[in-house]
Amino acid sequence: MKFQIIKSPSKGTLDMLIRRMGTGNNKDLISTDAVGLVQGMMIDMICAADIAEKAVGVTVKDIRGSCPQNMIMIGIFGDTASVESAINEIKDSLKKEKDLC
Amino acid sequence: MKFQIIKSPSKGTLDMLIRRMGTGNNKDLISTDAVGLVQGMMIDMICAADIAEKAVGVTVKDIRGSCPQNMIMIGIFGDTASVESAINEIKDSLKKEKDLC
Amino acid sequence: MKFQIIKSPSKGTLDMLIRRMGTGNNKDLISTDAVGLVQGMMIDMICAADIAEKAVGVTVKDIRGSCPQNMIMIGIFGDTASVESAINEIKDSLKKEKDLC
Amino acid sequence: MKFQIIKSPSKGTLDMLIRRMGTGNNKDLISTDAVGLVQGMMIDMICAADIAEKAVGVTVKDIRGSCPQNMIMIGIFGDTASVESAINEIKDSLKKEKDLC
Amino acid sequence: MKFQIIKSPSKGTLDMLIRRMGTGNNKDLISTDAVGLVQGMMIDMICAADIAEKAVGVTVKDIRGSCPQNMIMIGIFGDTASVESAINEIKDSLKKEKDLC
Amino acid sequence: MKFQIIKSPSKGTLDMLIRRMGTGNNKDLISTDAVGLVQGMMIDMICAADIAEKAVGVTVKDIRGSCPQNMIMIGIFGDTASVESAINEIKDSLKKEKDLC
Repeated sequence: MKFQIIKSPSKGTLDMLIRRMGTGNNKDLISTDAVGLVQGMMIDMICAADIAEKAVGVTVKDIRGSCPQNMIMIGIFGDTASVESAINEIKDSLKKEKDLC
Repeated sequence: MKFQIIKSPSKGTLDMLIRRMGTGNNKDLISTDAVGLVQGMMIDMICAADIAEKAVGVTVKDIRGSCPQNMIMIGIFGDTASVESAINEIKDSLKKEKDLC
Repeated sequence: MKFQIIKSPSKGTLDMLIRRMGTGNNKDLISTDAVGLVQGMMIDMICAADIAEKAVGVTVKDIRGSCPQNMIMIGIFGDTASVESAINEIKDSLKKEKDLC
Repeated sequence: MKFQIIKSPSKGTLDMLIRRMGTGNNKDLISTDAVGLVQGMMIDMICAADIAEKAVGVTVKDIRGSCPQNMIMIGIFGDTASVESAINEIKDSLKKEKDLC
Repeated sequence: MKFQIIKSPSKGTLDMLIRRMGTGNNKDLISTDAVGLVQGMMIDMICAADIAEKAVGVTVKDIRGSCPQNMIMIGIFGDTASVESAINEIKDSLKKEKDLC
Repeated sequence: MKFQIIKSPSKGTLDMLIRRMGTGNNKDLISTDAVGLVQGMMIDMICAADIAEKAVGVTVKDIRGSCPQNMIMIGIFGDTASVESAINEIKDSLKKEKDLC
């Protein structure tokens, strides 16, 4: 599993991500402070998404669009502290291995 | 073969899963208590789905949508005890190797 | 090459398989007694399909649908004895290696 | 590179192959005596197709359909002697390695 | 992660790249002086795109089109000095490993 | 990176290649004397295409069509001497490694 946090992402970067979501109205994400990215196997990304969803102050998105391939990346949008906190919760669960969810 | 059980999945997580099913009316799954995920080779996932289908109190779904790629994940929806029981039946069959179905 | 035989497959399991065939009217397969699954490289699956087609009492299907990806699984439908017999003929050919067809 | 020759292919097997060609009218191939299959990397399959095309008495087809993925298999249709001869010409070229075309 | 800089790209090369972008009006890119290419895992390419976007004098594009597969290449368009500078900023971030963004 | 040169390609072979280009009117390529094929990673193929484009007497095509997957093969069409010369220029650049473009 791989993690990245982009602080103050450029508009072009957010456009790339939003274009890959494919569903719903995600325009408000363009003014996000930070974005956390998590990449991994689909089964783990569903768990990571669930952990992040239960964290506060972040919006979680499946970065893939409507073509149902292997979901390999989720984006976690919010202010920098909330994104970092959500990423840390995923990393903490990961340490307790075989027990991510 | 990889297993995960998500207890009290968030609405966003269930939305991700339901969006990847593609067929039929799966709206009632949004109020599921737990979801078990099983990821593996297509031939094994068909067997795992059949074992889970024959367990009680769960609904089994192919998490992929309408584009017939490698089915690599199934979702097992139901109350926590039923989902755990269905996952255990798959794990038990897996121990008797070469004999999953 | 990997083999599985599912006896008395559940309706949900057969639905998953039929939904992945994509072509023709396969509704009569829903009342099949057993289904044999064979997974492997496309070139070997064409040969395995030909061997099974020449066996008696079974219907052979390419489990993929209309999107012409790598065919990696065939389903062999029929009564349990016929499916087992067709699978055994494929396994026998496989033993005489480099000579599957 | 992998080779198979199917003598007297069943109608169902030829249907599977023809359904994966996607282009043109290939109905006359249903009465073919034998089919040779060659699977490998796209660049090698183009060369193999060219060698087979220059052999006599065979029809060469790209077994994939209209979605331009990695072409990984060609079918060589004709009477058994012609198909075997075309396959042998490809194998002969392959022996003179780095020089398939 | 892999890097290439093409100075004075031919019109045909730029056509290939522009045809793979799929979105928006990219016709002005046909007169670019240089193009930098970066290939890697999707999560890293989002970071690399963000670094390049924040550099001056370049336009960053996701070279893939509308089908949301693994984004594996970005193109950085601009005058030779700006493209080289943006590529160097990505390489510099890469040296401080685990810290690309 | 892999190279092949087909001298006097058969009409069927050229049809296979042209069908995989998908864009524009490529009918004049059917009378080409020779075709050079280069297969490799997308980032290298863009560079190889640019080198070939700058050679004389050849037409360079991306052999994939409109579905923006990994471009893994380019075709170089022209008289035999020009195709061989273009392929050699790519091979020469390849020798000066890390410096293909």
